[in-house]
Amino acid sequence: MSKVQKVLMAPQGPEFSQLVQGYWRLGAWKMSPQERLTFLKQHVELGISTVDNAAIYGDSEQLFGEALALDPAMREQIQIVSKFGINGIPEAIGEKRVSHYDSSRSLIISSTENSLKRLGIEQLDALLVHRPDFLMDVDVVAETFAQLKASGKVKHFGVSNFSASQFELLQSRLDEPLMTNQVEINPINFDVLEDGTTDQLQRLRIRPMAWSCLAGGSLFSSDTEQARRLRGTLIELQIELGATSIEQVIFAWVLKHPANAVALIGSGKIERVKETLGALELQMNTEQWYRIWTASKGHGVA
Amino acid sequence: MSKVQKVLMAPQGPEFSQLVQGYWRLGAWKMSPQERLTFLKQHVELGISTVDNAAIYGDSEQLFGEALALDPAMREQIQIVSKFGINGIPEAIGEKRVSHYDSSRSLIISSTENSLKRLGIEQLDALLVHRPDFLMDVDVVAETFAQLKASGKVKHFGVSNFSASQFELLQSRLDEPLMTNQVEINPINFDVLEDGTTDQLQRLRIRPMAWSCLAGGSLFSSDTEQARRLRGTLIELQIELGATSIEQVIFAWVLKHPANAVALIGSGKIERVKETLGALELQMNTEQWYRIWTASKGHGVA
Amino acid sequence: MSKVQKVLMAPQGPEFSQLVQGYWRLGAWKMSPQERLTFLKQHVELGISTVDNAAIYGDSEQLFGEALALDPAMREQIQIVSKFGINGIPEAIGEKRVSHYDSSRSLIISSTENSLKRLGIEQLDALLVHRPDFLMDVDVVAETFAQLKASGKVKHFGVSNFSASQFELLQSRLDEPLMTNQVEINPINFDVLEDGTTDQLQRLRIRPMAWSCLAGGSLFSSDTEQARRLRGTLIELQIELGATSIEQVIFAWVLKHPANAVALIGSGKIERVKETLGALELQMNTEQWYRIWTASKGHGVA
Repeated sequence: MSKVQKVLMAPQGPEFSQLVQGYWRLGAWKMSPQERLTFLKQHVELGISTVDNAAIYGDSEQLFGEALALDPAMREQIQIVSKFGINGIPEAIGEKRVSHYDSSRSLIISSTENSLKRLGIEQLDALLVHRPDFLMDVDVVAETFAQLKASGKVKHFGVSNFSASQFELLQSRLDEPLMTNQVEINPINFDVLEDGTTDQLQRLRIRPMAWSCLAGGSLFSSDTEQARRLRGTLIELQIELGATSIEQVIFAWVLKHPANAVALIGSGKIERVKETLGALELQMNTEQWYRIWTASKGHGVA
Repeated sequence: MSKVQKVLMAPQGPEFSQLVQGYWRLGAWKMSPQERLTFLKQHVELGISTVDNAAIYGDSEQLFGEALALDPAMREQIQIVSKFGINGIPEAIGEKRVSHYDSSRSLIISSTENSLKRLGIEQLDALLVHRPDFLMDVDVVAETFAQLKASGKVKHFGVSNFSASQFELLQSRLDEPLMTNQVEINPINFDVLEDGTTDQLQRLRIRPMAWSCLAGGSLFSSDTEQARRLRGTLIELQIELGATSIEQVIFAWVLKHPANAVALIGSGKIERVKETLGALELQMNTEQWYRIWTASKGHGVA
Repeated sequence: MSKVQKVLMAPQGPEFSQLVQGYWRLGAWKMSPQERLTFLKQHVELGISTVDNAAIYGDSEQLFGEALALDPAMREQIQIVSKFGINGIPEAIGEKRVSHYDSSRSLIISSTENSLKRLGIEQLDALLVHRPDFLMDVDVVAETFAQLKASGKVKHFGVSNFSASQFELLQSRLDEPLMTNQVEINPINFDVLEDGTTDQLQRLRIRPMAWSCLAGGSLFSSDTEQARRLRGTLIELQIELGATSIEQVIFAWVLKHPANAVALIGSGKIERVKETLGALELQMNTEQWYRIWTASKGHGVA
C-alpha cells in the first residue's frame, strides 16, 4: 500500500493530502488523549496529513488539541483546517432564538482565536466559511481575512457549501484566491457536479474537498429504490474492480471526477481508514463511473 | 424621527432615497390633484424623494403629472423612475392577442416619450426595463438607451425582474453600468437572495430596488402554514424590537440584507408611510433576521 | 422562394446555412445512394448547405459518405458537422455495462477519424462534443482539439447540450471560441431560453443550433393540455400569417428569438424541406411569438 499523496489545492496553495480525516465526531469516538495521538500518527504514516475540523464540531477541536499537546512536534507534519460561521442555539424550553450563520468581524476573529486556543496551535493552515451566510458583508469578511493573514493566525482561506455565485462574490473582494469549496459529493447527492459549482472550481483550478462521500451511511441502510439500486451496482463493481468493500468503490467514484476533489473520511477506526486507501489503487473506468451514475438516477445517459 | 437618507445606487449613480414611494396604485387612492401634491410634499419632507412609476401602471403617471404641474419646483427635489416594456392587451370577447413584452426601439422611444409627457417632465432620472423580454435584441436596446441619454430624456438605465445572466447579457452591450435590478424581496419570496441575483448585484456594488416587501398583503391574510408561522414570529419580533407594527419588522428584514436594497412602499396613507420610517431605526440582529428566515422555510439553517 | 442564407455562427466563423439538414435518421429514410445524392443536391440548390451528423447516429455517416462518393465535387459546396462523445452499449441479456459519455483523447481521436472515414472526407467543418461528459478533462479536450486542428482534420469546434457553466469551463481552456452550442428549442421545451444558456451565447455572439424544433412530433400527437393549447394557437397563427403549415409557424417561432439560432430540419422528404423554407418568409410579430409562449405555459406574461 503506497502512501497517500499530497496535492496542490489551488494555484497558490496549500498542499493537502488526497484523503483528509474529518474529526467532526471525535467526541463520539471515545478515545483517550494517547489513543487520539496514536490515531493521528497512524494517519501521518499513511500520508493522510490533513485534518478537517470546525468551531461547531462540539468538543472535537479541544480533544484534538489535547492529543497534539502530548507531542507538539506533530504539528509540523500536518495541515489543520477549521471553519467558522455557525452560531448554534441549543433548543430549550421557551427559547425562541434560532441557530444562525454569522460572519461578522467579531465572530470571525473570536471563532478563529478560540479554535487556535482549543487546538493549541499558532496558525491554521486554512480557515473556511462553514456555510454561506445571507448576511455576509463580503467587504467586512475580506478585511477580516486580511487581518488574520497579517497576524499569522491563518495561512489560507476557503469556503464550504457555497454556490458558484456566492463564491464569485466573496472572491471578488479578496486579493488571494480562495483555496477550496468544501461540498457534499456522493452517489446519492452530487448536485454540485450538475449545478455549476464544480465547473467553476475546475475553471479556476481549485480542488473541492468532498464531504459525506458515504452519504452519512444512508447508502448502506436506506430502503429507497435508489439506495437499493446503488447497493446492487456497488457490489457488482466491488467484484469487477477487486475492491475489498463498497466504500472503496464509492471513494474511487468521488475521486475519479475531474474536479479532482480531496475526500474527507470521517471514520474513527484506523482499519477502516486503511481500507479506504485502497480506493486510490482501483482502476475504475468511465463506463463503471457512469454505471453508478445510472444506478443513482434510475435512467441512463441521454 | 430622522429623515430618510439618500444612498448611491451604483458606482456611477444615481442617488435615491432608501425608501421609495411606489405609485402603481395611485389611481386607486382616489386623491384630488392637490391631495396628490400634498402627499408628495410630505414624502419629500420625510426624505422619501424617489418616486417609482411605470408606463404600465394605468393612469398613475398622468395623475402624478397633474399634481406636479401644480408646483413644478418640486421636480428638482425628487427622482423619478419609470419603466417600459409591457404591452398589455385587454382581454375582450374574441380577442386572441395576448399581453406581451416589447423592447423594440420604437416601443422604448414611444413609451419613454409618453411617460415624460404624462409626468410633465423633461427627463427621467432612471428608466428600467420592466420585465426580461425573450425577444430583447440587446444591441438595439443599447443603441436606443444611448440615444435617450444623448437627447437628455433619461439620465440612468436599469432593469427589473432580470436574472443574473439576463443582466450580464444586457450589461455587456452598454457603456455605462446598469443602476439597479428592481426585484421582489419579502419573507415569503426571497428567491433573488438564493439564486445568484443579489450575489451579482453585490459583486458589482449595485443596489436592488425591492418591490412587494409586504408580499402584496398575503403575509397578513394568507391561511398557509408558512404565513401563520411568519405572523407568529413577526409579532414576537415586533415586541422584542419595540416596533410599532409587523410591517416595520418586515421592512427592517428586507433592509438588513447586505445587498443594501432600497425598499418600495406602495401605500397611499401618509400615516402608514411615516410608520414605515420606523423600520430604519430598528436594531434587528442577525439571529432575529434568521428567525424570520426559519419561520419562512419551516426549518432551521443547516 | 428565395434561397436560404448563410450566417456567421461565431465571431471567427464558420458560416452555416440558416436551416441545416439533420441526418440522424438517414438510415430510416431507405434511400438508394443515388437518391441520397439527389436529396443532398436539392438541399444545396435551396441554400441548405450545412449537414448535421454524429458518430452515434447509427449508419447515417456511412450512408451519407456513400452518396457523397458518387459526386465528390459536392464536398466543396457543403459544411459537415459531426459529434463525438456517446459510447452506446447495446442492452443485451446479462450485459451490465451502460451507455456512457466519453471525452478521452483516444475516443475523440478515434471517433473523429472514424467519422471522416465513413463520410469519405478529409476534414470536418465542425466537431461538437455531443453531450456534457461529467468526466471531461477539459485540459485533455483542449489539447486534443488543438491536435485535430493542427492536423487539418477539424476546422471548428463546438458543443451540444452544454449548460452555461460547462460551456465557460471548456472555453476557458481553448484558444479559439467555441462556434456553437447545439440545444433543444421548441414550443414545448425552451429551457435554454430561460436558464441562461442562450443569454450566454448572445453575449458571446455565438449562434445556437436548434435541434428538435418540432419536439419530435409530440406537438402534433400528444394528448396533453399543453399540446392541445399549442395546436390551437399554431393553427390560429397559421391562418393569420398565411403559412401553409403549423410546422412553418413553429420554425418561424424558433428563428425569431434573438439568439439567432440556425434550425435543424430532420426530414427525409424534400417536399417538407421546401415547405419549411416558407418559415423564413413569415412575418411573425412579437405578440404572435408570445401567443405561442403563452399557449405553452398556460398563463400569460407577468
